[in-house]
Amino acid sequence: MPADGSGAHLAAEITLAATLFDQLRAGSRSRLGVTRASYGEGEQMAHDLMSRLGETLQLERRIDAAGNLYLTLPGRDRSLPAIMTGSHLDSVPEGGNYDGAAGVVAGMAMLAYWRRTGRQPNRDITVMGVRAEELSWFPAPYIGSRAAFGLLEPAALDTCRRPDTGKTLAEHMAEAGFAPDRIRAGEPQIAIDRIHCFLELHIEQGPVLVQRGLPVGIVTGIRGNLRYRHCRITGRYGHAGAEPRESRQDALLAGVDFIHRLETLWLEHEQDGKDLVCTVGQFHTDTAVHTMTKIPGELWFTMDIRSEDNAVLLAIDRRLRAHATEIGRQRRVQIELGEYTNALPGPIDPAHLQRLTRLAKTLSIPAMTMASGAGHDAAVFGNRGIPTAMIFIRNAHGSHNPDEAMEMADFAQGLTLMVAAVEDIDAAV
Amino acid sequence: MPADGSGAHLAAEITLAATLFDQLRAGSRSRLGVTRASYGEGEQMAHDLMSRLGETLQLERRIDAAGNLYLTLPGRDRSLPAIMTGSHLDSVPEGGNYDGAAGVVAGMAMLAYWRRTGRQPNRDITVMGVRAEELSWFPAPYIGSRAAFGLLEPAALDTCRRPDTGKTLAEHMAEAGFAPDRIRAGEPQIAIDRIHCFLELHIEQGPVLVQRGLPVGIVTGIRGNLRYRHCRITGRYGHAGAEPRESRQDALLAGVDFIHRLETLWLEHEQDGKDLVCTVGQFHTDTAVHTMTKIPGELWFTMDIRSEDNAVLLAIDRRLRAHATEIGRQRRVQIELGEYTNALPGPIDPAHLQRLTRLAKTLSIPAMTMASGAGHDAAVFGNRGIPTAMIFIRNAHGSHNPDEAMEMADFAQGLTLMVAAVEDIDAAV
Repeated sequence: MPADGSGAHLAAEITLAATLFDQLRAGSRSRLGVTRASYGEGEQMAHDLMSRLGETLQLERRIDAAGNLYLTLPGRDRSLPAIMTGSHLDSVPEGGNYDGAAGVVAGMAMLAYWRRTGRQPNRDITVMGVRAEELSWFPAPYIGSRAAFGLLEPAALDTCRRPDTGKTLAEHMAEAGFAPDRIRAGEPQIAIDRIHCFLELHIEQGPVLVQRGLPVGIVTGIRGNLRYRHCRITGRYGHAGAEPRESRQDALLAGVDFIHRLETLWLEHEQDGKDLVCTVGQFHTDTAVHTMTKIPGELWFTMDIRSEDNAVLLAIDRRLRAHATEIGRQRRVQIELGEYTNALPGPIDPAHLQRLTRLAKTLSIPAMTMASGAGHDAAVFGNRGIPTAMIFIRNAHGSHNPDEAMEMADFAQGLTLMVAAVEDIDAAV
Repeated sequence: MPADGSGAHLAAEITLAATLFDQLRAGSRSRLGVTRASYGEGEQMAHDLMSRLGETLQLERRIDAAGNLYLTLPGRDRSLPAIMTGSHLDSVPEGGNYDGAAGVVAGMAMLAYWRRTGRQPNRDITVMGVRAEELSWFPAPYIGSRAAFGLLEPAALDTCRRPDTGKTLAEHMAEAGFAPDRIRAGEPQIAIDRIHCFLELHIEQGPVLVQRGLPVGIVTGIRGNLRYRHCRITGRYGHAGAEPRESRQDALLAGVDFIHRLETLWLEHEQDGKDLVCTVGQFHTDTAVHTMTKIPGELWFTMDIRSEDNAVLLAIDRRLRAHATEIGRQRRVQIELGEYTNALPGPIDPAHLQRLTRLAKTLSIPAMTMASGAGHDAAVFGNRGIPTAMIFIRNAHGSHNPDEAMEMADFAQGLTLMVAAVEDIDAAV
């Protein structure tokens, strides 16, 4: 059966993928959804499942010092850098079945298709099962993929503790049978020049594809972020009725002023055509002491600001600091933005983006280009200079919750596009 | 010794007052400050202390069905309506020693002065020790003074429960030996036409007198309030990076917009010379589920809005409702202001205000006129049509906390003004 956009030529692989999803869910079901903790049972179950399928498909298997899994279909010319694909196999606590796993399942289904059709690629094709991508378990981004490149900061191994066990990342790695000391030493587990490109398939974590009625998204860039976890405003508590406005040091009204200005900055950037989204996820007076009749003397909040363009992020940071100073002076409060992190945007390779767009059109797969709002392991590959691309699959109800709802028909279209792209890349040798 | 602003003629009574404050503190000391629960031990101790002093001074004593205490120095003409003064004897939990008590102590010191100087007033002069003014114990305002006028809503007796005991107001009243059924029946305990005027002395609960360097304030009006205890915004939780601005239903940004508009209304009214203060004491995303990377789908806040002019409050309420509807539509959220209460402003009698201002000048007592931001029992008397006035005493660090700091020298000046005012009123027969 010839390849076309219907995915009919991949019917056997789509059935395989559906079975894999069922096995993943059955093996990691928790109270409300699925739970696959980084370096925990659920994640290991998923790695074992993929390893066993790798054996069946007679793939080469390697597990690196951080526990990342590599399953390789050998190409004709082993000296050529490999085409890599994959994603992570952990989930947030009480999450959904598809976030991360869909990318690994897609890679395995693709290799199964090569095997079933009895062909051999020119290059190695490797599916990577990445460890520990979700921040819920250890508060350091992209642990598995950064460790693979020897880039995980050693401190993360000893200071990041899993909230459910209290144990450090290094302890969990060692208990699971891996070698945290080699990761601590910064020893690369994969070589940049041995990777021809990296393609990651992932469910869309936002509602755009659902809203637009399209099964597939082709990613134009992975938004970087500025994250302020501990913003704090200090004023002075006072009597709600008896303190005149001129002498109030109202932390809440200062916070409202500050966030109002953040939103104004956002709208300005949007009008200038800049990619930007801003979220204040936590914002609260002190729940232990606040009352209706007391002027709030303290306020805490977070900010998560994302853009495909790091220059936009840095400009926002400068403007916010100026606003904090000005509001602090005007309102007699102290605004501290506190420590922040800046994750770089993940560049998408223009040639790969173009190829995916062209193939979607050829195959009549309804698709749109869009920014990735969430971070992905692909950003780590892209920032190493490896040509990188991403395919999104439509998914209702967002991710990181039990209601994730990817349809297999949509997955089939995304898989079809990925299979075609890899064949196209491989043929270009 | 002739009366003058120094209070030297009241030296003995100021010593008495200082002793009473010491006894009050010693009898109600708690972990951090003083605690005199409504219908609890500390309040009863204070009532007993005043009763015993009443015996010493040979005053007439009456205790009404709600437990309010009346100590009366009989006048020459018992048929004339009485001059009344007083305040409440309860405190907030871990509060200060002066909020409320200062007004009762001042009244007793004044009667002691009449006795020591061997004079008899033309009219009865009554000091009232009011029960249960602080909202911390039972969530109904002015319980004692409203009960005295037969105005306490019966439901308050059975639905208000003291948080520390879980018992209802009626149970506490009955246990303390009073007659909640008579209060429930709306039986007045005092007659409006038997009260010539009501003067309340109270510590200032804000910082104005401290800021202006003045020991005494003369109150122009008691602010009424609008209180919204359960404002709620309902949007939809979403992914911080992946949800585009156009489809967000961000409860936090809607709340920021709403409070920003409230502050704008406040500034507009201030520019028009209207009395107004606004406080958002509680404002928070859901601390159980909020995270830095999640668009908040819910928000809760309170509003406490006060003015001497109830028309201003009602106008603000209308404007806020219009804003809530508009923001809800613009931002795809639902803003519910929820139940609210409207406590009427307490009118101050212009003739009494003028008398106090004139006497302060004559006696060289440094004083200013000012609104009372907090509610007081005096508002209940004023709203019954009884000519009412209030004197504030400078107090550092606000009230309702252990750091209340009224100086006895300032109290002496306020007492001097009150004694002079009562003599002036009494002489006008």
